[in-house]
Amino acid sequence: MENRAEILCIGTEILLGNIVNTNAQVISQGLAELGIFVYRSAVVGDNAGRLQEALEIAFAHNDIVITTGGLGPTYDDLSKETVAAYFGLPLELHAPSQQALRDYFARVGRPMTENNLKQAMMPRGCIVLPNPNGTAPGVIIEGTGERAGKTAILMPGPPREMVPMFRDQVMPYLAGRSGQVLRSHILHFFGIGESDLEQQLRQEMLAMENPTLAPYAKEGEVQLRVTASAPTPQQAEALMQPVVRQLRERFGPLIYGVDVGDLQTALVQELAARNLQVATAESCTGGYVAKRITEVPGSSQVFHCGIVSYANEIKERVLGVRPETLAAHGAVSPETAREMAEGVRRVSGAQIGISLTGVAGPDGGTPEKPVGLVYLGVSSPWQSQVKELHLSRGYRTNNRESIRYLAASHALSLALQVARAQP
Amino acid sequence: MENRAEILCIGTEILLGNIVNTNAQVISQGLAELGIFVYRSAVVGDNAGRLQEALEIAFAHNDIVITTGGLGPTYDDLSKETVAAYFGLPLELHAPSQQALRDYFARVGRPMTENNLKQAMMPRGCIVLPNPNGTAPGVIIEGTGERAGKTAILMPGPPREMVPMFRDQVMPYLAGRSGQVLRSHILHFFGIGESDLEQQLRQEMLAMENPTLAPYAKEGEVQLRVTASAPTPQQAEALMQPVVRQLRERFGPLIYGVDVGDLQTALVQELAARNLQVATAESCTGGYVAKRITEVPGSSQVFHCGIVSYANEIKERVLGVRPETLAAHGAVSPETAREMAEGVRRVSGAQIGISLTGVAGPDGGTPEKPVGLVYLGVSSPWQSQVKELHLSRGYRTNNRESIRYLAASHALSLALQVARAQP
Repeated sequence: MENRAEILCIGTEILLGNIVNTNAQVISQGLAELGIFVYRSAVVGDNAGRLQEALEIAFAHNDIVITTGGLGPTYDDLSKETVAAYFGLPLELHAPSQQALRDYFARVGRPMTENNLKQAMMPRGCIVLPNPNGTAPGVIIEGTGERAGKTAILMPGPPREMVPMFRDQVMPYLAGRSGQVLRSHILHFFGIGESDLEQQLRQEMLAMENPTLAPYAKEGEVQLRVTASAPTPQQAEALMQPVVRQLRERFGPLIYGVDVGDLQTALVQELAARNLQVATAESCTGGYVAKRITEVPGSSQVFHCGIVSYANEIKERVLGVRPETLAAHGAVSPETAREMAEGVRRVSGAQIGISLTGVAGPDGGTPEKPVGLVYLGVSSPWQSQVKELHLSRGYRTNNRESIRYLAASHALSLALQVARAQP
Repeated sequence: MENRAEILCIGTEILLGNIVNTNAQVISQGLAELGIFVYRSAVVGDNAGRLQEALEIAFAHNDIVITTGGLGPTYDDLSKETVAAYFGLPLELHAPSQQALRDYFARVGRPMTENNLKQAMMPRGCIVLPNPNGTAPGVIIEGTGERAGKTAILMPGPPREMVPMFRDQVMPYLAGRSGQVLRSHILHFFGIGESDLEQQLRQEMLAMENPTLAPYAKEGEVQLRVTASAPTPQQAEALMQPVVRQLRERFGPLIYGVDVGDLQTALVQELAARNLQVATAESCTGGYVAKRITEVPGSSQVFHCGIVSYANEIKERVLGVRPETLAAHGAVSPETAREMAEGVRRVSGAQIGISLTGVAGPDGGTPEKPVGLVYLGVSSPWQSQVKELHLSRGYRTNNRESIRYLAASHALSLALQVARAQP
């Protein structure tokens, strides 16, 4: 049962529907990478009796139980107490955790209450996982005696505390149980669907054991995670490098980067490295491209100006699109896209201008210009073009949002390609 | 146990972390509105043995078990078969479902396979829930004999099929078991925190039974759901109206709307009703306000122009901010915000201009102008002002994103107030 785990998320606020349980997904993904099978995932309220019952059910089938939540300072935070009781362990004051708490409160400038000291009480003999992002340390309990072979891993509930603790401490711990370290790289694909990629890689994915390949679809993109385990980080890296290299050769520009986070970060890094600027002229996306570029810290170096020209008059007056162009071809046309991209380059002084004009819907579509038709223009001294996109796949619940998001992704991808094509 | 339920989500793709389980949240929220307590929520894989075990555990504690997933046409979709077996019921061809399947495939223009007929097989005597958004009908089984008092409710897994089925069919069914219908209104708050609102309303929330009040925090906003049950919709409405009226009087402009969806939708509706236009000049938010306004279908009537003036040169050249202003006060200053708002009104011809300039971080903060300082300007013929915001609460994992989102929310809220103040 070593390769089987149960996830137990503790929190009445999840059962009330106040929050969505993203922690379970993060843990599931990580365990899948480690080759650990998730037998079941459950949510229980902040109630000692029910938590104890859930623990017993979970350990009846699995040797590893991972919990989130219930490590706070208040009386209804019961995870540590209940799990310690299950293992027959007393709680003791853990001096380093106490000091870390004092340091934390000094740093954020809030007074520490006596309540908080509860968070420094730890089951005897456990492994304490420091929490640099909050007050509740994590806990790993390795059972002895009649609980021998059973391991409980307790983490705090807030995702910004749980996620780094899980990836930085718990995953290495689990990998290390087999004397291995775990390393991974993420290949970022744009322009190929998950099922298409899976089909092309099915043989490799089934045949490969170390490293493993796992694709995740993410809003029009696919991330392929390559994960290797080996006795040392260097050996893990050596296992991955040939695979990453082969995949990059095979898929070429469909892979826009490795470990780059997202399209906008890849674009900002590429532009910064080349000392280039991009400017945006947006109609149907209404500022979405500019918003995504400026999500990236430091984007002010490569992005100075964006124009949201939602009305034709603004296309003419601010971007200099010719009235004849609009009259002859309409706002949603390759001609208008071209003049918008040229116009925003002129207004901004950026080397690369990108433009979007299209029909995001739900209204405004016609048989000639249906919802989802988007023209994407780019203008630069070395390459100018207009692409016609037909976007309709509703991977978000709201189709207008899907079309706008995907159109913006195409714009970021094209800008990246044009930047890379700079002579 | 009538008022207690367990949620069972079926799908290996959830346990692998490929998707996040939003269905559990939607169901939890709806059951909370109905006054039904969720005892536990669990996820199991597509495996008949494990599903059967989970069903038995769930029904040991609860009389209602709600499942999602496993209703598809393939061999590993086992929910209906497993639950029917638990209740000792045979599956029979359900003619209306068969016809609905044929109609569905005719409508989407795809061929229907024999596999799909499996989706028209129903447990004898069950209630069938039509699925207008997909091929898998839902099922309600009310147990008899040794299963008397037990109810299983099965819904498909894809959220865009599950969510409407749950809210339009399952919730009325559950309310109707007590001879009641259920109605609710959502009051949208901006400018007050969830804990603050909860504290102010604690007495009412505890004392009121019908209607009930339930607050949900949502990215800097709070939604207060007022839910009433009564024999008729009219009576439910009559129960809610005085409560809604009192809350609106008590909280005044902190409530920006009732059942309006979000700030941007409320703003677009208000502007459209008054035949006003708004224009945006954004620095730190980088297009976020424009993006959110243009999320709303029909926003082109009220929004024509947005300028993302990320660099000072663009503030001067496109918006007409005076170089002396920038030199004397800096880009992040009330003076610059004022001139940006005036400038974008001039450029666009809109009656209302809004502007944002601030420090979104993570870098660029100074002791005088720290990360989170944002100046929000508004210019209109009847009201102009600049607000200083200090934003820091990190309710998203990324603080830069939190600051930008919340700054945009403040801008939308201020624009809405100014529109409403039009003489």
